[in-house]
Amino acid sequence: MNIDGVAWRTISLDADQKTVRVIDQTLLPHRFETLALRTLSDVATAIRAMHVRGAPLIGVTAAWGLFLACLEDASDAAIEQAANTLNATRPTAVNLKWALDEMLQVLLPLPASERREAARTAAQRLADEDVETCRRIGEHGVALIRAVRENRGNERVNVLTHCNAGWLATVDWGTALAPIYKAHDEGIDVHVWVDETRPRSQGMLTAWELARHGVAHTLVADNAGGHLMQKGLVDLCLVGSDRTTRSGDVCNKIGTYLKALSAHDNGVPFYVALPHSTIDWTLDNGVRQIPIEERAHSEVHEVQGLGANGELATVRVTPVGCEAANPAFDVTPARLVSGLVTERGICEATASGLSTMYPDDAS
Amino acid sequence: MNIDGVAWRTISLDADQKTVRVIDQTLLPHRFETLALRTLSDVATAIRAMHVRGAPLIGVTAAWGLFLACLEDASDAAIEQAANTLNATRPTAVNLKWALDEMLQVLLPLPASERREAARTAAQRLADEDVETCRRIGEHGVALIRAVRENRGNERVNVLTHCNAGWLATVDWGTALAPIYKAHDEGIDVHVWVDETRPRSQGMLTAWELARHGVAHTLVADNAGGHLMQKGLVDLCLVGSDRTTRSGDVCNKIGTYLKALSAHDNGVPFYVALPHSTIDWTLDNGVRQIPIEERAHSEVHEVQGLGANGELATVRVTPVGCEAANPAFDVTPARLVSGLVTERGICEATASGLSTMYPDDAS
Repeated sequence: MNIDGVAWRTISLDADQKTVRVIDQTLLPHRFETLALRTLSDVATAIRAMHVRGAPLIGVTAAWGLFLACLEDASDAAIEQAANTLNATRPTAVNLKWALDEMLQVLLPLPASERREAARTAAQRLADEDVETCRRIGEHGVALIRAVRENRGNERVNVLTHCNAGWLATVDWGTALAPIYKAHDEGIDVHVWVDETRPRSQGMLTAWELARHGVAHTLVADNAGGHLMQKGLVDLCLVGSDRTTRSGDVCNKIGTYLKALSAHDNGVPFYVALPHSTIDWTLDNGVRQIPIEERAHSEVHEVQGLGANGELATVRVTPVGCEAANPAFDVTPARLVSGLVTERGICEATASGLSTMYPDDAS
Repeated sequence: MNIDGVAWRTISLDADQKTVRVIDQTLLPHRFETLALRTLSDVATAIRAMHVRGAPLIGVTAAWGLFLACLEDASDAAIEQAANTLNATRPTAVNLKWALDEMLQVLLPLPASERREAARTAAQRLADEDVETCRRIGEHGVALIRAVRENRGNERVNVLTHCNAGWLATVDWGTALAPIYKAHDEGIDVHVWVDETRPRSQGMLTAWELARHGVAHTLVADNAGGHLMQKGLVDLCLVGSDRTTRSGDVCNKIGTYLKALSAHDNGVPFYVALPHSTIDWTLDNGVRQIPIEERAHSEVHEVQGLGANGELATVRVTPVGCEAANPAFDVTPARLVSGLVTERGICEATASGLSTMYPDDAS
């Protein structure tokens, strides 16, 4: 997507062929800087500390991490150790494990001497495929927005989203935001209600990227969505997913479940956009089976923003000594999901819906 | 309630008999300071800018505002003008209008010369009645907590609350927190999940006052409650109300509705604690009829906390140029409310439930 007219991806290999360059998302929306990742350890830290985040981007970043690991030591032991290290960085998004498995499947059968080049090619392929996957999610998902617009007589379409499932969460296009970009590019008047998404405030990333692309949007506290839906101000909810069970339960950023409940209570369609790599075919009960990451409590205690001098600053918002808890994801049961928007089309959030889309994986 | 062992009320008249002293809640939880209100204009500003907040406390503060107005000019015109000014400070909490009506009913029939003394007495009476009302809410509500404890074999009882409906929101005791204080004082092991309550973060007030009283609590982002309930970590939700319709719909701090939906979806009892002054007997459809205050967008854009130097500081969290919306309340339909805890007892959130409690008002 564009930043000030220049096309960007969230991750790429520098011309030196040994530096992986990412956008440092911990500085956005206030500062746009890139971060150079040169070692396996750099990559693990970048994922853990959320310099890169978003399930699809985490997967691709881990793939590039294995490439960097191969530059250091391409032996079986080193690669497997590297994959374990990367897989342990974050527990919830299944794309991480999926991307590492894809890489290991390519690398392990090869002699060590060929792995470096193969890892580069494979990581680049995963990145390129992610772009194409998201582009297709956008093409399928835009039908939902077109349908709302037609029902509403060409008036503005109001979409609510939670967290950031935009191009910053993928390599390009995004998942939940891809249909919105497509709609905007088609000339549909689309406006996005952007949830702040405490405690990490990924809504600021969403607001930032929508602004770069010129899409109308309004930022609201996470508490506001129910009221907006009660008042008829939301036509459609579109969110991403970090892990989706074979039965259609959706694990996404903490708070998604509350918006799904509200959408259901107010008859607002609630769709989840996701690539195939987000589906965990081994699970069928999301609430019981998906591990929910508990992140550092400092994310609840502290808030980052621009201080009075225009520099990034952090303030402590909770009383000193206050305990906090910080579950990072929740699970929206399939019964609350109107449908899943995949790169292959839109299906019901059910086992049969998903198996129609992915007959090979589902069997 | 106690602050470092000293008993406090949130509002009182100084010994000089012309200064109304309040706790400045915009500085909490980081600094404890009082604010002297000496004129009608001081009071209007204090309510509007939320130096004092919470429906019951807003009512009592407005009553003291009329007393201060009488010190300046006790004519009919001046008093009515003062009441209009105060009534316009915040639109949603009906206690404001209720308290002003109570005061006008006392003052207007009297000759101007007697109004000053009468206003002092009446405002003090409203303050004292609020304390007694909240104490009784606590006595009735503690039964809910005792019942949970008995069902759970004397294990810890986990209560979730949203916003601050504690003693800081009233003159003393609180509404939703009064039963919690009573339970704690009875020796029940009660733990409170405290919603942050963006954008104004009144959860920090709740955490602060619970800490002063020694009640165990954990602060969470507003997004977390649904997940906590899915995991069986919440036994009971207890919140306050800013306006309750005769049919039992509850208007409370934005985001309350989302927690009520989640409680309903997970079979968690959801109770609302409120004094009679919060009931608007003229309304029967909360979602359609209750005016929802839209507050300054700066509340969404900016966050206050302690900076690196230990001083209060404000940071801007949204991207520069970003639009925001800031509805301050939402309405929880009566169908999602397990019951209402009033100073007269616990009743169903229905017209018949409320008319049993308040036969005179309901008729």
